[in-house]
Amino acid sequence: MRGVIMHAPGDVRVEDRDHPTVVEPTDAVIKLAATCICGSDLWPYRGAEPVDHQPMGHEYVGTVTEIGADVRTLAVGDFVVGSFFASDNTCEICRAGYQTHCVHRQQGAPGGAQSEYARIPLADGTLVATPGQPDPDLIPSLLAASDVLGTGWFAAVAAEVGPGKTVAVVGDGAVGLLGILAAKELGAERIIAMSRHADRQALARRFGATDIVEERGEEGVARIKELTGGLGAHSTIEAVGTQEAMMQAIHATRAGGHVGFVGVSHDVAIDGFQLFRSGVHLHGGPAPVRRFLPDLIRLIWDREIDPGVVFDLVLPLEEAAEGYRAMDERRAVKVLLTV
Amino acid sequence: MRGVIMHAPGDVRVEDRDHPTVVEPTDAVIKLAATCICGSDLWPYRGAEPVDHQPMGHEYVGTVTEIGADVRTLAVGDFVVGSFFASDNTCEICRAGYQTHCVHRQQGAPGGAQSEYARIPLADGTLVATPGQPDPDLIPSLLAASDVLGTGWFAAVAAEVGPGKTVAVVGDGAVGLLGILAAKELGAERIIAMSRHADRQALARRFGATDIVEERGEEGVARIKELTGGLGAHSTIEAVGTQEAMMQAIHATRAGGHVGFVGVSHDVAIDGFQLFRSGVHLHGGPAPVRRFLPDLIRLIWDREIDPGVVFDLVLPLEEAAEGYRAMDERRAVKVLLTV
Repeated sequence: MRGVIMHAPGDVRVEDRDHPTVVEPTDAVIKLAATCICGSDLWPYRGAEPVDHQPMGHEYVGTVTEIGADVRTLAVGDFVVGSFFASDNTCEICRAGYQTHCVHRQQGAPGGAQSEYARIPLADGTLVATPGQPDPDLIPSLLAASDVLGTGWFAAVAAEVGPGKTVAVVGDGAVGLLGILAAKELGAERIIAMSRHADRQALARRFGATDIVEERGEEGVARIKELTGGLGAHSTIEAVGTQEAMMQAIHATRAGGHVGFVGVSHDVAIDGFQLFRSGVHLHGGPAPVRRFLPDLIRLIWDREIDPGVVFDLVLPLEEAAEGYRAMDERRAVKVLLTV
Repeated sequence: MRGVIMHAPGDVRVEDRDHPTVVEPTDAVIKLAATCICGSDLWPYRGAEPVDHQPMGHEYVGTVTEIGADVRTLAVGDFVVGSFFASDNTCEICRAGYQTHCVHRQQGAPGGAQSEYARIPLADGTLVATPGQPDPDLIPSLLAASDVLGTGWFAAVAAEVGPGKTVAVVGDGAVGLLGILAAKELGAERIIAMSRHADRQALARRFGATDIVEERGEEGVARIKELTGGLGAHSTIEAVGTQEAMMQAIHATRAGGHVGFVGVSHDVAIDGFQLFRSGVHLHGGPAPVRRFLPDLIRLIWDREIDPGVVFDLVLPLEEAAEGYRAMDERRAVKVLLTV
């Protein structure tokens, strides 16, 4: 089968790879309906993380083609959505909603989901079947649920977004944009998107942003204070992962407010005294997307949300390299690869 | 009147100071019944914070002797407890329970409460009157409510302590010990105190600790994991303020758990990726003691809690220098100064 391999930073190729099979009795194999490129794939692409002939991709939807002997809740032919951590969904940590920290978790599993087929460990815990075979136009949204929507949703939940609250969103990538959608669904009264790109501002408004702030850093913070009577946002989503974005999020939030951070932290060091003085709540990490999948699938199935519009470039899997380039150059917010 | 002045690190003297008077119409002046030395007073004493002829002290209980023209809720003769931030208790931030970040806050007010009298700004918002004149044996506990108990209580609340939970407490100073008392009152099932001093361990057990861990750093973390089935505590109180204590608290907590930190952070830098990976909630800062004062006063008045036993050395105000020495040398957990 065909799959994406990153040979080195900036060097993405689509090559023949072994067809995955069931290895453990708890595995399933799926045929992908679509996959996509993640903002986090750009870290190694840009040389900010080491990479050496790595099969890429961790977002996926598709049809079960094979199951291990111990798989109980899924059958061949089911259409499924999963997330980027395999989890048993039964341990104490999973039951508390932190499947990304499952005691049996397999991080980054499946590796290499930018491909035609993928092996999914702990299939009963990891995968959620849709109510039936999806209409083709639902596939982008279901795929978004697999990571970016689930991650944006977690960020909003971690930031304790709710009715009557003012929410600031740092980061106008796909996760930040879907954090806006989540904030709107969770009842936020006002949503301030931080973005200086007209196309992303338009998408932000479509998803529910009520205000746009173009300033960054301390200027951006000052603007948010101005918009909130000097107090700062109740809830702030940090969806970048840089030092500037993290401090911007902390400083834009009022004392007693909540920062939900989901940008994978790179060279971030939070000054303890600044955090102490801020009085904010800070929570984040790799999003336990599995916690939210049943609800997100229902919202998508019922066509209450359309997160799939975040994909603004669709390419065949064979053209993955162009997809990486487009995202790297910010010509595309997020690239869907058809399989 | 007499009051404590720190001339320089290690140089504490009791000297004549001006008798405070009402300056703003929202002020009150109180005659102190007792005051005390705070762990945070040791930072300048040890040269870790700059200090130059500074009137010391921010913990106080006493009797109102004078009120400004705009004070509505207090009368001369009332016995009152306050906290170390003056706050109006009416702004949006105060109403959300973060009086330490009140839009009209006066940080560190009153300065110089290790003295016979003190001026309290924003008296209506800052002070809480007791139900009547307290029995003398209640005064140490009411004084504890003014800071150490209120701070330990906030740490427990920030750590989301509750029934069925396992709580770890980093720091066996007065705040950590009263964090144990708070955890017990808030219904914790199991309370693990980290301490290597026999006298503090005894007090920890008296306040409700069920387990003692003597190891520190990563060894201490390993021991807490061992005691919690490999998962870590649900809730951890950080009551020290050093890098080691903060990372110990984060690492000792399970994913999805909560760290409440109240140690004033000194040279702490939290690695963003470690925090990201941990999946914990982090909340803390200067404790909004005022939020808890009405409840704490009631618990003390009804003799349901006895936080005053944390004072293991009582000296007259004139001997404050010996009190600082005793705390610096860890001969005393906390020193009460009679006025």
